[in-house]
Amino acid sequence: MARLDGALTPGGLQRRNAIINAAAQLFNEHGYHNTSTAQIAERVGCAKATVYHYFKKKPEILFEIHDQWIEELLTRVEERDPGLSLEEFLRSVFRDILHLMESKSDNVRVFFEYYHELPSDLRATAVAKRDRYEALILNRIEHGVRTGELKARQPRIAAFALFGMCNWAYQWYRPGRELSDEQVADELFSIYFDGLGAAPSAG
Amino acid sequence: MARLDGALTPGGLQRRNAIINAAAQLFNEHGYHNTSTAQIAERVGCAKATVYHYFKKKPEILFEIHDQWIEELLTRVEERDPGLSLEEFLRSVFRDILHLMESKSDNVRVFFEYYHELPSDLRATAVAKRDRYEALILNRIEHGVRTGELKARQPRIAAFALFGMCNWAYQWYRPGRELSDEQVADELFSIYFDGLGAAPSAG
Repeated sequence: MARLDGALTPGGLQRRNAIINAAAQLFNEHGYHNTSTAQIAERVGCAKATVYHYFKKKPEILFEIHDQWIEELLTRVEERDPGLSLEEFLRSVFRDILHLMESKSDNVRVFFEYYHELPSDLRATAVAKRDRYEALILNRIEHGVRTGELKARQPRIAAFALFGMCNWAYQWYRPGRELSDEQVADELFSIYFDGLGAAPSAG
Repeated sequence: MARLDGALTPGGLQRRNAIINAAAQLFNEHGYHNTSTAQIAERVGCAKATVYHYFKKKPEILFEIHDQWIEELLTRVEERDPGLSLEEFLRSVFRDILHLMESKSDNVRVFFEYYHELPSDLRATAVAKRDRYEALILNRIEHGVRTGELKARQPRIAAFALFGMCNWAYQWYRPGRELSDEQVADELFSIYFDGLGAAPSAG
């Protein structure tokens, strides 16, 4: 579906993005089941036929909501300076995810709360892309364990700890409050990397 | 709704729990919207009228699915030995939540994925109880910062980091795999308390 983008004019791409973002807002406000194509068209200010031109069915919009932000995360990791230290790399991952909570909060929340509504083929594609992203992070953690930079006994659990800390922010982080997304990311990262305990643990 | 329990016979309480657990399974398997009272009755092996005797509407079952496990978490924290060190207290919270992922995995997942389907009054009650639980943990973290046991600059974010690490397990933890819920909890806790970095951070 992402390949379709290449065939669109800049105006077409803009309309398609407007539909995706309007749908994410409406799914959040009224629920996925309670949102119709007519309401999405009304929010965008276009005809229903325009929505159908870009998306044959509502689940395709839901898929695209996720695909856009998981692509953004993948691109950011893949284009990152390979000279970054592991610590800086991991900090940047926290910042990437929290930045999404700032810039695309509706879109992130909608995916986590409604992904089970995707038909199984689209869900499998979405999960495969999420798995690819998770594997990129897990590989770096495993590498860090081998070089002695990280002390994870269970790299897989260390990766899930990272995703838990960052992804869970969709439940509580609200853009525009006292701390910026970068400040929140750095706070979370300092817990992840340095721990919360003030002294070496006796345990 | 929890007060109703007191009025039930042991047999009634058992039937009511069977309905709650069967509903959680079915909501997971087929989705909340696609599950009917008739299917719940069939899974329990009782009449539809029996389900209606305990729950007037489907959202009441969804509410109760959450209420049972949040009550379990609250009870465990409230009855905990007050002589525990802060480190041991926090470790026990990780174990409590991961234990739920083991013992009531369907029920936990259903709540996180379908809580937005609750009507606003029931949702407000559920959120208030979750807030009470979160406040108990946050208070202990704030106390630890005052005594110097914890180095959180932002106790609220430290509390959300804990909930993120533990609650996110509903996405990936599957009971009965190689690591027990307690082992997973202890791994997550060691990251939370001691950090993942092998050496003191230069940052």
